[in-house]
Amino acid sequence: MIIVLKPGSSDADIEDVSRRVKGMGFKTHLSRGDVRTIVGVVGDDRAKEQLLALQSLDCVETVVRILQPFKLASREAHPDDTQFKVHGVPIGGTQLVVMAGPCSVESRPQLMAVAEGVKAGGAHVLRGGAFKPRTSPYGFQGLEEEGLKLLSEASKATGLPVVTEVMEPDKVEVVAQHADILQIGARNVQNFSLLKRVAECGKPVLLKRGMSTSIQEWLLAAEYVLAGGNPNVILCERGIRTFETSTRYTLDLNAIPVVKKLSHLPILVDPSHGTGHWEYVSAMSKAGLAAGADGLIIEVHNNPAEALSDGPQSLKPDRFAKLMAELRPLAQVLGRSL
Amino acid sequence: MIIVLKPGSSDADIEDVSRRVKGMGFKTHLSRGDVRTIVGVVGDDRAKEQLLALQSLDCVETVVRILQPFKLASREAHPDDTQFKVHGVPIGGTQLVVMAGPCSVESRPQLMAVAEGVKAGGAHVLRGGAFKPRTSPYGFQGLEEEGLKLLSEASKATGLPVVTEVMEPDKVEVVAQHADILQIGARNVQNFSLLKRVAECGKPVLLKRGMSTSIQEWLLAAEYVLAGGNPNVILCERGIRTFETSTRYTLDLNAIPVVKKLSHLPILVDPSHGTGHWEYVSAMSKAGLAAGADGLIIEVHNNPAEALSDGPQSLKPDRFAKLMAELRPLAQVLGRSL
Amino acid sequence: MIIVLKPGSSDADIEDVSRRVKGMGFKTHLSRGDVRTIVGVVGDDRAKEQLLALQSLDCVETVVRILQPFKLASREAHPDDTQFKVHGVPIGGTQLVVMAGPCSVESRPQLMAVAEGVKAGGAHVLRGGAFKPRTSPYGFQGLEEEGLKLLSEASKATGLPVVTEVMEPDKVEVVAQHADILQIGARNVQNFSLLKRVAECGKPVLLKRGMSTSIQEWLLAAEYVLAGGNPNVILCERGIRTFETSTRYTLDLNAIPVVKKLSHLPILVDPSHGTGHWEYVSAMSKAGLAAGADGLIIEVHNNPAEALSDGPQSLKPDRFAKLMAELRPLAQVLGRSL
Amino acid sequence: MIIVLKPGSSDADIEDVSRRVKGMGFKTHLSRGDVRTIVGVVGDDRAKEQLLALQSLDCVETVVRILQPFKLASREAHPDDTQFKVHGVPIGGTQLVVMAGPCSVESRPQLMAVAEGVKAGGAHVLRGGAFKPRTSPYGFQGLEEEGLKLLSEASKATGLPVVTEVMEPDKVEVVAQHADILQIGARNVQNFSLLKRVAECGKPVLLKRGMSTSIQEWLLAAEYVLAGGNPNVILCERGIRTFETSTRYTLDLNAIPVVKKLSHLPILVDPSHGTGHWEYVSAMSKAGLAAGADGLIIEVHNNPAEALSDGPQSLKPDRFAKLMAELRPLAQVLGRSL
Repeated sequence: MIIVLKPGSSDADIEDVSRRVKGMGFKTHLSRGDVRTIVGVVGDDRAKEQLLALQSLDCVETVVRILQPFKLASREAHPDDTQFKVHGVPIGGTQLVVMAGPCSVESRPQLMAVAEGVKAGGAHVLRGGAFKPRTSPYGFQGLEEEGLKLLSEASKATGLPVVTEVMEPDKVEVVAQHADILQIGARNVQNFSLLKRVAECGKPVLLKRGMSTSIQEWLLAAEYVLAGGNPNVILCERGIRTFETSTRYTLDLNAIPVVKKLSHLPILVDPSHGTGHWEYVSAMSKAGLAAGADGLIIEVHNNPAEALSDGPQSLKPDRFAKLMAELRPLAQVLGRSL
Repeated sequence: MIIVLKPGSSDADIEDVSRRVKGMGFKTHLSRGDVRTIVGVVGDDRAKEQLLALQSLDCVETVVRILQPFKLASREAHPDDTQFKVHGVPIGGTQLVVMAGPCSVESRPQLMAVAEGVKAGGAHVLRGGAFKPRTSPYGFQGLEEEGLKLLSEASKATGLPVVTEVMEPDKVEVVAQHADILQIGARNVQNFSLLKRVAECGKPVLLKRGMSTSIQEWLLAAEYVLAGGNPNVILCERGIRTFETSTRYTLDLNAIPVVKKLSHLPILVDPSHGTGHWEYVSAMSKAGLAAGADGLIIEVHNNPAEALSDGPQSLKPDRFAKLMAELRPLAQVLGRSL
Repeated sequence: MIIVLKPGSSDADIEDVSRRVKGMGFKTHLSRGDVRTIVGVVGDDRAKEQLLALQSLDCVETVVRILQPFKLASREAHPDDTQFKVHGVPIGGTQLVVMAGPCSVESRPQLMAVAEGVKAGGAHVLRGGAFKPRTSPYGFQGLEEEGLKLLSEASKATGLPVVTEVMEPDKVEVVAQHADILQIGARNVQNFSLLKRVAECGKPVLLKRGMSTSIQEWLLAAEYVLAGGNPNVILCERGIRTFETSTRYTLDLNAIPVVKKLSHLPILVDPSHGTGHWEYVSAMSKAGLAAGADGLIIEVHNNPAEALSDGPQSLKPDRFAKLMAELRPLAQVLGRSL
Repeated sequence: MIIVLKPGSSDADIEDVSRRVKGMGFKTHLSRGDVRTIVGVVGDDRAKEQLLALQSLDCVETVVRILQPFKLASREAHPDDTQFKVHGVPIGGTQLVVMAGPCSVESRPQLMAVAEGVKAGGAHVLRGGAFKPRTSPYGFQGLEEEGLKLLSEASKATGLPVVTEVMEPDKVEVVAQHADILQIGARNVQNFSLLKRVAECGKPVLLKRGMSTSIQEWLLAAEYVLAGGNPNVILCERGIRTFETSTRYTLDLNAIPVVKKLSHLPILVDPSHGTGHWEYVSAMSKAGLAAGADGLIIEVHNNPAEALSDGPQSLKPDRFAKLMAELRPLAQVLGRSL
């Protein structure tokens, strides 16, 4: 952190600021310019947040953060890429991972049809929502525990591990009994009670970026899980909210190389939510991999026009298979395999 | 909803769309233009969300929502302003309400000093956080239940009712034992599990707008609480996330007249989070009331430079008292009282 | 500026960076932390932009701006508020200014009717567009020079000075012949060729904020005019573009106290464009003044339902007069007069 | 357009609205729902903008646009992709185009070195700015006409056609004498005076998206050029402004498939401005092509650390050549050639 003092700050002001900084356990480094004095702060970055309070002193113009505030999630602390396996499926290495399935688990026939479809298309992990965060209380809220059981059944039938969303701390245990990867949805990326609980459950966590979460805040959310003792975090870019309305969200693919520079964690792209229209899913799947993502998570439905949620952005199984066929040579050119 | 068909759609296409719409329980109304056919949908607005899935049909260009999707929160369904009292403090009428106190409850001496200060300045409700949603896992996480007890104590000492944040469903009960109003923070506005639980607890709910929540989504979040049987929802505009970085958030005061038009619920303004700098709190408090808000929620701290959270945006008690003195004649000119 | 070096930078790296900084005419101030070395740069702030190029060196992590890059527009360089008069109408003092009139000059009868209406309501300056920046080439493009003549005529008839938009450098001269204040529209706030030309014309300039212009960039746009020799710049907040769609733009009233802190220039609020709906104009006019603005610019039309542009956000003359009557006591409470 | 009437609108209201719509030259189509009556409007889409004014009638709730407001730029009116050649360089077909060069023309040696570098790397068009839109009046403003001459010289020396920015209508002629493609920069995308003038000049136009321009507004800006008689418009996505600050802008690659669906115009990606950091240029170049772009425009400088503008986002010639080598097999997999 850098504390910039106002022009005309007295020696007593500088002394007061320095005393306060030292009182918080840091060392200071003074730099006097023609107009302004700057107090550099040296010490443990994780504790520096409290320095922001000094902005309320009359002599302080601003407090500027110089370094990233996360530690365990940073590439500086952990230079090598994080890699691990989920039931034999590698995450984070040269092998790309594709997770696919319906937005919501709606019924046994629907889930089985889609699960078989994505398995045939080449997906590695089955996705499907049992607990559904719906904008409207009148929308379909999910099959809940019944949905979890159907996911387990589909997993056994296809051999695909399952990723599904958990929405509240109390449900972590039951979701973890049926799922191989726990998804934290965009609206819960800063649900810190939930992050602390999934950190303890031992299963890998797929952490979606919130629709207005900065990359720094997102990595701090990951830091909650890592600091809680769970090293297996998978990030997922799914679009941010901007002024553009021709797509549901704006898929921020810049985030891929930025995260790759700042962090060692694997990162996926969700082109279904990131665009909101199935017609754009293919283009943005390719773009996501070309940007350097470690995989994709794609919504697939056997009958999108009657889907209980996210129909407009769901691929049919045959389109999904066609997309996978197009992605394989692309992966190869990018030095990855699929 | 209006379903716009692509140019060149056949009679069979139109028939297929109409059949599907009717199958979902709606009536249709056809309108054939020179280039496009439009299918209007008539029926219960709350159920129309599922119509969006029709966008995945090849013949459908787009599905456009015409009406607001909330019902209980709408002024159309409930023309009169919602008004109620919390321990004798009126919310939502001509009398404005000011809630004030520290961001975090840090200690008994700190809370008592601030509570006495805001009481002396003329606040009607004491605010203070016991459970704190912090961006970094290394930030101060709140005194939790110990903090709730201190709030109860401060409430008794000053006679001010208490508003405090609840972050997870499982804590609703204990927070409701100590608080008179339960606050849902910006990051939890679409934490639907939490919304359902506070709907059941019977106490008034202060529902902050999320940093990227549209007004429509916000009113749908309120609808969760209303539909759960709790009519006492207070909205609170606290700034949205935009590209502007000279303030912490962009306080969207347009939201005040928009909400007043669309809904009957009372609405407050939080100029502390909405600006992030104590120097701007006074101007934006006045602007908030002038825009038509029913009150304010303001962060006050006896020693902002050593606050454990939100120091830069906290007023000292004497500045708060000065602001209140300026707000009183303003309220009168606006036809309100304070 | 502060140049942050990467961990592990060698003495040779530090030497190289220092040498380059000195080569650009600045002094350096070194600060070695536990992990990173920071090079502070001392010298003329206006020239520091070029330092950003050093980010392309391998050893540089980032270059952080500490001070504001504008000078003539800053309150630091010019502590007193800028105040001046336009044909006797004071701008920037305790007296508030209200500019009102139609979006577009459409015809003599329309303009005369509106001009008389706003004069009767108490406006101080007549607004009206002769050259119109329209999103669609098929929209009404303005009466151009014919419109300017009508504005002159309306000005003579009512005694109100005129503000009107100029869209290209070549038209500055002719617009200045008919207008008392030249408006730079939101889409041209960074049309630097135009800014340079209006700087030379001698007439006051009303500089609207662009829909995605940061406050810093906006003050740098003002700096173009000031540096070109024209001290009479009036800023105007008219809403920024965000994700919220229930209003046309998001009126950023935070900008009022921020600009008042950073700059000495007068600032107005445009609640018509800032909301896009006439029903919200009254609330946001009050909010703008309460936030500390020096005045308002409001669209008024005698027949909004047939206006050739911006009908939905235009007040009728009688509503405008009613609003003015409500603003007068508000101004008084705020220590201003109207 | 669809005009939604308020609940309780009388037959007289409906009649009045219908009469007004017909008076503007359209036909109407009435649809009465349980709660609301909707008036559909049939006729020339280009003229429908004026219908928005009807929102100011008391009985009208909202006016909703159903169709895209552009015509010449639409794929509906022009199903085949636009393709043309600039000095033998194909634009818009299966052959991808890469434009590269410095942000600013700084000197003859600099420009020649970079021009030779990008030619050797495989670029097809030389870019370079002679007139520079700079945020600060104290930044380097370009060599202006001297810069144009150097571009001509570099073009002759390398055989590469030249693209360069024009900032004001009066300079179109002189820029067109030296340039093969005229660039409209992001800040001028809605500088309609300039758009009208470049429409007349006969040379192809590279139209960058503004930092807060919606895709619809962008295609309407293109419509200005097309309607002015110039069919050779190349679109260029260069990043939009969002809340994310770890990159300079947010490159909106969703825009590629959206534009490909809505329009027939070729579209490029600018990964240099879109990220603001040379380290991310390679990843986002690949992502841009994978999303379906017809080419790239990339900033290259022989000495980025001393560049007078945009140093941090410029590649060195050898890195550019390396990137081109990586793009060639990628292009092939995507069914394109480079």
